[in-house]
Amino acid sequence: MADNKLQQQIEFITEIDKLKSVFRRTKILDNSRYENDAEHSWHFAMMALILKEHANDPDIDILKVMKIGLIHDIVEIDAGDTFIYDDSLKENKYKNERAAAERIFGLLPSEQRDEMISLWEEYERQDTSEAKFAMALDRLGPVMQNHNNQGHAWRVNNVPADKVLALNSRIDNGSKPLWEYAKGLIEDAIAKGYIK
Amino acid sequence: MADNKLQQQIEFITEIDKLKSVFRRTKILDNSRYENDAEHSWHFAMMALILKEHANDPDIDILKVMKIGLIHDIVEIDAGDTFIYDDSLKENKYKNERAAAERIFGLLPSEQRDEMISLWEEYERQDTSEAKFAMALDRLGPVMQNHNNQGHAWRVNNVPADKVLALNSRIDNGSKPLWEYAKGLIEDAIAKGYIK
Repeated sequence: MADNKLQQQIEFITEIDKLKSVFRRTKILDNSRYENDAEHSWHFAMMALILKEHANDPDIDILKVMKIGLIHDIVEIDAGDTFIYDDSLKENKYKNERAAAERIFGLLPSEQRDEMISLWEEYERQDTSEAKFAMALDRLGPVMQNHNNQGHAWRVNNVPADKVLALNSRIDNGSKPLWEYAKGLIEDAIAKGYIK
Repeated sequence: MADNKLQQQIEFITEIDKLKSVFRRTKILDNSRYENDAEHSWHFAMMALILKEHANDPDIDILKVMKIGLIHDIVEIDAGDTFIYDDSLKENKYKNERAAAERIFGLLPSEQRDEMISLWEEYERQDTSEAKFAMALDRLGPVMQNHNNQGHAWRVNNVPADKVLALNSRIDNGSKPLWEYAKGLIEDAIAKGYIK
């Protein structure tokens, strides 16, 4: 029989399978279907691995960025995906997600629960190099996806160009070269009429 | 404009989006659909993070295990998913996957290409603690999934009990406690008639 600690860890690993059924507003690059949070989190962690040299902070702890990438959306199992351009959802977002973090990470042994909640809170606060670079990667993916499919999520949700530029400009806080790249994609999308 | 190195990295990040459309023989835990390689790789990396204390080698480099988890199936974009219980597919598996590794990781700047191919080869060779623990996690997931859905992949593919036990016993090389746990699930599946 598994000891109590392993049993708790297995329960957590089983619970987070549900992230594969939380769908986002962005489509995968072949446009065949919406992306789910689990595969988005995989792509995020891969981006951390491949793009780390572009972080503004050369001494960034890339393992921590990868951990943030893997766990940052787990709260959405309970709280659901919040479309970042929808201001009406912002008010209760933190409260709902914090409750979700306590329930889901609370399945783990206490030391691991504390580490996971602390990583999630660090990402929310955006006050470390790792959290800022993680945010840059979390935003870059959807910009690439939306540029690739003629601005699908921006168009169907009526997001204006100035809002796309403003919300994605925080990529700059984590990586100047990645913001230069993303800004180029957004400007190209505006020029091509993908954004209103 | 992005410099040449960033452009290569972006091309790789775009290419690997295809992993979200490579489907496996196992279903996600709610049984609603088959699992894809990208979300499987996310779950694998999460398991590395949560279960590291159960590795046989207490000095294991968990960042390396996570990297292996994230990249180990990328070759399947070209080579497809090989069902581990199907012996007929083994012969050309390495050759096809090696060619895929060279093409896909070959999109990256040379230093990163070499690191990724080396990680993938290390996992294939199974001669380090990290590769062995990674294999344990890669096997544990499907055992949990199949136990959960009355042995779906074992039943529909006619895999006999001795083969399920033999192929999964390699979990023991990476983690004795995880093999104890997985063996318990397989024995329970046999007792319940989920495996022929």
